[in-house]
Amino acid sequence: MKKATIVGSGLVGSLWAAYMAKAGYEVNVYERRADMRKAAISAGKSINLATSYRGWKALDAIGLGDEIREIAIPMYGRTMHLQDGSTAYQAYGADNQAIYSVSRGGINSKLMDAAEKNANLYFNEECTGVDMATNTCYFKNSVTGQTTEVKSDVIFATDGAFSAVRYNAMQKMDRFSYSQNYIADGYREILLPANDDGSYKMAKNTLHIWPRGRFMLIALPNADGSFTCTLFMPVDGHENCFNNLTSREKVDEFFKTTFTDFHAMMPDVADAWEKHPLSSLAIIRCYPWHYGTTALMGDAAHATVPFYGQGMNCGFEDCTVMWGLYQKNGDDWEATFSEYEKLRKPNGDAVQDLSLQNYLVMRDKVADPNFQLQLKIERRIAELYPSSYFPLYTMVSFTDIEYHTALSKGEEQDKMIKGFISHHGISSATSPAGIDEFIHSEFGNKL
Amino acid sequence: MKKATIVGSGLVGSLWAAYMAKAGYEVNVYERRADMRKAAISAGKSINLATSYRGWKALDAIGLGDEIREIAIPMYGRTMHLQDGSTAYQAYGADNQAIYSVSRGGINSKLMDAAEKNANLYFNEECTGVDMATNTCYFKNSVTGQTTEVKSDVIFATDGAFSAVRYNAMQKMDRFSYSQNYIADGYREILLPANDDGSYKMAKNTLHIWPRGRFMLIALPNADGSFTCTLFMPVDGHENCFNNLTSREKVDEFFKTTFTDFHAMMPDVADAWEKHPLSSLAIIRCYPWHYGTTALMGDAAHATVPFYGQGMNCGFEDCTVMWGLYQKNGDDWEATFSEYEKLRKPNGDAVQDLSLQNYLVMRDKVADPNFQLQLKIERRIAELYPSSYFPLYTMVSFTDIEYHTALSKGEEQDKMIKGFISHHGISSATSPAGIDEFIHSEFGNKL
Repeated sequence: MKKATIVGSGLVGSLWAAYMAKAGYEVNVYERRADMRKAAISAGKSINLATSYRGWKALDAIGLGDEIREIAIPMYGRTMHLQDGSTAYQAYGADNQAIYSVSRGGINSKLMDAAEKNANLYFNEECTGVDMATNTCYFKNSVTGQTTEVKSDVIFATDGAFSAVRYNAMQKMDRFSYSQNYIADGYREILLPANDDGSYKMAKNTLHIWPRGRFMLIALPNADGSFTCTLFMPVDGHENCFNNLTSREKVDEFFKTTFTDFHAMMPDVADAWEKHPLSSLAIIRCYPWHYGTTALMGDAAHATVPFYGQGMNCGFEDCTVMWGLYQKNGDDWEATFSEYEKLRKPNGDAVQDLSLQNYLVMRDKVADPNFQLQLKIERRIAELYPSSYFPLYTMVSFTDIEYHTALSKGEEQDKMIKGFISHHGISSATSPAGIDEFIHSEFGNKL
Repeated sequence: MKKATIVGSGLVGSLWAAYMAKAGYEVNVYERRADMRKAAISAGKSINLATSYRGWKALDAIGLGDEIREIAIPMYGRTMHLQDGSTAYQAYGADNQAIYSVSRGGINSKLMDAAEKNANLYFNEECTGVDMATNTCYFKNSVTGQTTEVKSDVIFATDGAFSAVRYNAMQKMDRFSYSQNYIADGYREILLPANDDGSYKMAKNTLHIWPRGRFMLIALPNADGSFTCTLFMPVDGHENCFNNLTSREKVDEFFKTTFTDFHAMMPDVADAWEKHPLSSLAIIRCYPWHYGTTALMGDAAHATVPFYGQGMNCGFEDCTVMWGLYQKNGDDWEATFSEYEKLRKPNGDAVQDLSLQNYLVMRDKVADPNFQLQLKIERRIAELYPSSYFPLYTMVSFTDIEYHTALSKGEEQDKMIKGFISHHGISSATSPAGIDEFIHSEFGNKL
């Protein structure tokens, strides 16, 4: 029986373990942390995740989609909470299209359970090195101190943004390009609890955003009626930055002034402030993604900032692509890994670019009347020409068009829509019938 | 007595050790390699170095310039060896301006000797970790296996492009940005020996270039009559690339066809081919350059590709700047390091950008008649207005104008000269008197 070693039992590692077991491999998964299922599930430093089309596709292909749907809450659009206390709503796509809020702990536990049916999971096992020439991984157990040497036929590194396999082995290889770039902003989580009767304090099936230009607060629903809220903001160097919020009083004042409706729902926000640490955000790029029969998948290959909700979805899509190549190449992993990295690297880069762009959209543009008009026009075009026009958000979240194609097509469309609005002198005062007429006259023959 | 630990006894580490000893510190230098002075000096994987203004300034400030001048060979310009067998010459600056060829082994040995007068040098000491909170360095001796723990007041990491201090300590810090980018090209060294009577086979006081568009061969003079020659070329993916030169015959044929005059001087070039390995070229960027009282200097902070001959000069300038800040701040190294990294990071970035640009200049542009005309015009402007116009190469190599200023000013000047040539319809046929007239009419009032 051929042996596969998977380093890391996070989201991608656990899902991929299920795939490799299906391929008939003996699968051994080594995880640095303790078994999260035996401790109280903590959201930890992680914001909630949003599962979208690519994620569901990879889960459904191995029969795990329905189980995850049980713990997932659909969000059909974004609700903006503006400075003046008013709210506005933007649908993400057509009526039935949604992204799904899941807690990282919840989905990871379910994927571990599924993996464990046909794979072995070992916990507290820190990867201290990999000899990629002999396919040998070295682990040290952080509880017992025992060291283990594992030889296998193929090694998958799914050990996250700060991958030990990448750091201990790949980064030492000649001509391995690598970058880790922290953005100027950090984040801090706050849990907005449910009402006493367990009901939600705000609309449930939507992603809430308080866009404030250079920073923003967001909230995603949890199954128990609470919302996981996250404040994204510069660490320093700005009037509103984490380093200026140095006391309980300042935090309270900041929320009261800046997120007034949020503060009204949670007057003790300053008490919750210290419950989660200030965390950093980085984009990590590297290449190649494999040497011999050792490959990087998920965040280990392409960790991104979280603003498009695509980190997990992109990692799960790595599994879809890898599985397709395995069907074609069988056990010739060198061939598979060569194709995989060529196919996926442009998409890893693109999802990172998209994520950075979408921070600007979420924290600033969504509140801009020009952007809102553009979104409205674009949505209408997509409604009138549903099989030939796909807005960028739709391509990214509700299709599996390659990320790099979506990125470049999105840029073209952005220019095109801007030109269309200006050419026809469309404003928010233009009637829906007038807009439709312009759309038909402009696109009737093209789309 | 305050203690300074320097990790790495390369060019910058050895020079900085002399500076720190002058400051009255107990200086301990730990070097991973064996003492190069006790082995036969080998140029190793390194091309010859070109010392220019910034390098001399840092050496002279501590009285080491004259000693290095003894082993340095001035190069007043570049000699292009064109495909048709003809040669052309471009002066680097005014008549007395030169960059100076030195062997890495030669200059490093002299700097180690100088450092050792007032500092302790330890060899075969690999840095296995640094606790930057307690200023403790950990070393393991590769010969005896013995481990050492060194506490000191300040730590300088001058351990090169693949700095162990950066890798083992800084890269693990939150919000440390880092990138290593390999360029598509590699290099291989060839030694062109002296004639039997010890004389040079080509003109001595010039840097020889065989520009061939996508690749190039260069040669720098050594004191013994030989030239250190380096072929820079894509590793793969091109008609002319290292991976295509797979046999003695192919190497011979490649040189005979492509560098015909070189092959005539060295018909056994194919035999010399295997004496040096194919090596890689990377640009390494990071930030910050310090935590607490541990700082990166030289290549550890800003390793560059070698095409402007500024890697060592920039590292030596780090010493000049650090010394200036030490004069101001005394033993407050945290203050000094904060100022140092803010001052030097834009220059580290700029020297890397300049180095990449100059590869294009050397391998391609120098052979382009338009570029040659531009160079000629620019040189003439600088001759006519010597105190107000400085060509980019002059700013970089013969002044200590900050690299980032030189880079942006150079871009402005490039546009300006191109506009001037096109506006006045200047061609290579224009007479020198005609050119002077245009220059005076255009710049008489501005410069």
